[in-house]
Amino acid sequence: MSPGAGPIPSGPMKWWGWGDPAKRNELGEDARGMLRDVLGPAESTEVPPIESVSLPSPRELPEALRSAVGADAIVTADAERLLRAGGKSYPDLVRARSGTFEVAPDAVVLPADSGQVAAVLDACARESVAVVPFGGGTSVVGGVDPYAGSHRAVIALDLTRMRDFTVDPVSLTARLGPGLRGPEAEALLSEHGMTLGHFPQSFEYATIGGFAATRSAGQASAGYGRFDDLVSAIEMVSPAGPLRTLETPHTAAGPALRELVVGSEGMLGVITVVSVRVRPAPRKTRYEGWIAEDFAAGAEIVRTLAQAGALPDVTRLSDPEETRISLAMSGTAGLKRSALDAYLRLRRRTGGCMLICGWEGEAEDLERRRSVSARILRSGGAVSLGAAPGKAWAHGRFEGPYLRDELISLGYLVETLETSHTWSRYEELYGAVHGALRSALESQGTPGIVMCHLSHAYRDGASLYYTFIAPSRPGGEIEHWRALKSAACEAIVATGGTITHHHAVGRDHAPYMPAEVGELGLDVLRALKERLDPAGIMNPGKLGL
Amino acid sequence: MSPGAGPIPSGPMKWWGWGDPAKRNELGEDARGMLRDVLGPAESTEVPPIESVSLPSPRELPEALRSAVGADAIVTADAERLLRAGGKSYPDLVRARSGTFEVAPDAVVLPADSGQVAAVLDACARESVAVVPFGGGTSVVGGVDPYAGSHRAVIALDLTRMRDFTVDPVSLTARLGPGLRGPEAEALLSEHGMTLGHFPQSFEYATIGGFAATRSAGQASAGYGRFDDLVSAIEMVSPAGPLRTLETPHTAAGPALRELVVGSEGMLGVITVVSVRVRPAPRKTRYEGWIAEDFAAGAEIVRTLAQAGALPDVTRLSDPEETRISLAMSGTAGLKRSALDAYLRLRRRTGGCMLICGWEGEAEDLERRRSVSARILRSGGAVSLGAAPGKAWAHGRFEGPYLRDELISLGYLVETLETSHTWSRYEELYGAVHGALRSALESQGTPGIVMCHLSHAYRDGASLYYTFIAPSRPGGEIEHWRALKSAACEAIVATGGTITHHHAVGRDHAPYMPAEVGELGLDVLRALKERLDPAGIMNPGKLGL
Repeated sequence: MSPGAGPIPSGPMKWWGWGDPAKRNELGEDARGMLRDVLGPAESTEVPPIESVSLPSPRELPEALRSAVGADAIVTADAERLLRAGGKSYPDLVRARSGTFEVAPDAVVLPADSGQVAAVLDACARESVAVVPFGGGTSVVGGVDPYAGSHRAVIALDLTRMRDFTVDPVSLTARLGPGLRGPEAEALLSEHGMTLGHFPQSFEYATIGGFAATRSAGQASAGYGRFDDLVSAIEMVSPAGPLRTLETPHTAAGPALRELVVGSEGMLGVITVVSVRVRPAPRKTRYEGWIAEDFAAGAEIVRTLAQAGALPDVTRLSDPEETRISLAMSGTAGLKRSALDAYLRLRRRTGGCMLICGWEGEAEDLERRRSVSARILRSGGAVSLGAAPGKAWAHGRFEGPYLRDELISLGYLVETLETSHTWSRYEELYGAVHGALRSALESQGTPGIVMCHLSHAYRDGASLYYTFIAPSRPGGEIEHWRALKSAACEAIVATGGTITHHHAVGRDHAPYMPAEVGELGLDVLRALKERLDPAGIMNPGKLGL
Repeated sequence: MSPGAGPIPSGPMKWWGWGDPAKRNELGEDARGMLRDVLGPAESTEVPPIESVSLPSPRELPEALRSAVGADAIVTADAERLLRAGGKSYPDLVRARSGTFEVAPDAVVLPADSGQVAAVLDACARESVAVVPFGGGTSVVGGVDPYAGSHRAVIALDLTRMRDFTVDPVSLTARLGPGLRGPEAEALLSEHGMTLGHFPQSFEYATIGGFAATRSAGQASAGYGRFDDLVSAIEMVSPAGPLRTLETPHTAAGPALRELVVGSEGMLGVITVVSVRVRPAPRKTRYEGWIAEDFAAGAEIVRTLAQAGALPDVTRLSDPEETRISLAMSGTAGLKRSALDAYLRLRRRTGGCMLICGWEGEAEDLERRRSVSARILRSGGAVSLGAAPGKAWAHGRFEGPYLRDELISLGYLVETLETSHTWSRYEELYGAVHGALRSALESQGTPGIVMCHLSHAYRDGASLYYTFIAPSRPGGEIEHWRALKSAACEAIVATGGTITHHHAVGRDHAPYMPAEVGELGLDVLRALKERLDPAGIMNPGKLGL
């Protein structure tokens, strides 16, 4: 287990927010002051006591379910239903704080193996019960919202008991159960000296099945590959039966069924086995901060790195606003704002953009790769800030969602969204989304912070990841959020960017699927679903189907 | 334009065999003698005069086709129908030499753009005419055989007029028409200092559309990526309408429709635009020969190279038989057999295996990468044979199919087939296919040569590429071929290897699709086809649908 700071949490997350119930990430007075300066007054909110939370009464479930998994594996306690009543998007967190859940699974069903999954799906298809496959519950796009659709009830099919693990040290592959959390998979692999290298911000709680179902990408995906690159074979149990792809490094036998299962977001069936490519765990890691003159200069550096095959394994360029705010808010970049300002004044620069670069591997090769990257960074006018900002980034790499809860408590709306485009159009996309969020904030009458970073760079383009913060509108949080989110999404699709680079579609991006894949593309997905899930029980209301 | 020896041919191929009608690749007397020694006598065959060739009479085509493309773009001359009557598999070549074609397209239709493609498909769907998309006609698996299926006629939809080309030098991408041949695309890219880096053996004649439709892999795919890795976006016109994926480096928006179009082998529609990732053309190339102690030792070296990220851009390991035969047959390895023998005797080795390694890129980086690879090669016990075998390989890299025609003329059956597996099972696969071919040759009562090379190595496995040669059975060539081919295919599926790593499925591998993707997998492909091609006009009889 390489990344992250403290011990890995193992229990369930807070029912009302992100992560370890024992942990919070309090904002300092400086940061609060800065937010007040920029955003004006905000009305703080409280988390209601769990006893006051209201869930819909559980509906009766068919007897057949009990014979599928045994009575012990069906849980109907409110505390358990509550934990699977949604994911961790801003709207999810707002609903939790309201104390009223309009939807919740009627039961949590915990299959032990793929045979039990098949039996559950069979019973549910016959009895018209919707099924939401549930891993870590970390979706930020409404991907696990427990909608029954037209069915008589809905269950959360919790896969955390399915944690098989076998490793093939010769082929550097591993067969993983869908219920393994990121840290669990890494711990098992590290016993063999290996790593998967997949570290999204949700790493501590998200599961292998969820990574596959959503086409996850991690902070080090430039080095290790996105999760879809890591999947060598996959098995899914659909209501129509099992589907599996061969354990072979590549095949040219027709359209890639693997790529239909990856990204299927629980709409076609339940992912039961994921075979992944693994690597020897890096013996050395080195994370650094650099500062680029401005966002365009920084992006040009990242493009050059990517096209030269010299991309650090972690490469993340913040725009001026994100650079400034993140330094001010949490000191995660390891430099005090005053120190940075002084440094930049010294060099007669302002509006600089922070670049976090990280290399992982064997010492000698790492140093060589770093020196190739450093040459390109310097040619592009970037200045090294040394190891401190890199270390601070690595220390705080999974902290963002904790911070979000703090911001919500302080009375702020905070949301992230992400897209990607080719290098020739990323600047247009950057401007369009920025402009759309700015004018939506204005027409909503709220001040706001809009910040962005470029990450997940490729030879042909990169992703853009936005964070926006505004004073929340008590009682109208969701409408407020929707106005801002829609403005950004519409700007993305108008510019030809993708509606999601790695958060998936879920409920929130469903309206934009026609722009993404076209009406015929959606029809093709519908045809797939009709074949694999003829009763339409799988994860209703997601993906726009 | 980097690779290959002489000028690039631009006209149609020989109607009866491979490549430039003005060119042949005659075998020397030494090589013929060696074949006689190993395989016994063979009965040479002749190519019949074109005047004596018999094609089925063309069926009447609906008037609507003429309004779709204009009368000029519909060709019914026998000489043109003949050129699209099949691909270039061994059975195709045997049928050509028989002088009798049982199937041929009723017309060759040449659309100018995607609008005309849509109009053709529309007319054909209404009038029940089957459509075989036709690019270079280089399929070796029966992928373009003009079957009408249950329809009243069949056309070859020749895409060679669709040769659009635009390049995005910032994003290093290019939008290519499906009708561009490999060398044409490379010539256009080289005007911008770029390369696609895709060089399969069929390179001189195969087209961009065909590369995408078949999931092609090239000789330098270790360095540049397989063709499916190179495709960033794709457009297809299906009978149900157009399908296009976004021009973005990556998306997490659901199942990957791009990966359904790539590999669709003309079964779902016609690929009309392929956006690809390109690279700066390498300024330097270096190809070398090495000799490994035996196949297992060589494979272990290639695995180490792949897993260390130190794979040469071209990496190809011949087994002892291929090493011996290819040296004897053509001297393509640039060393006389006697010289090699002397060399190996000197080092007390026998049964060595030739490894061709090629690096492409900038001088300094190339030398560094070469020295990393060389260290691993030497640690694995390989001995350098210097540049001569590498240069000879590069010189002859597209010559194999010419040689095949010579062998057929001399009276030999010659066929290739390919598969892949993980490193932990490749040796089992190698033995199983080898054994199956050996016993099939024995039960057929024919002596034979069975040889293999390992190429397209990955971190998790590699492909195996077999060539087998036997005296052909006059009048019973196809049955003889089928017995050998089936034995190999059955051994592959029994070992869990893929039925094709890069030749695609076509007609020949269709029976093995249930083993490859399962009955439900096939059903999913059928559902896709029913949605996109409800009249079932697209390329009947391929992919097992």
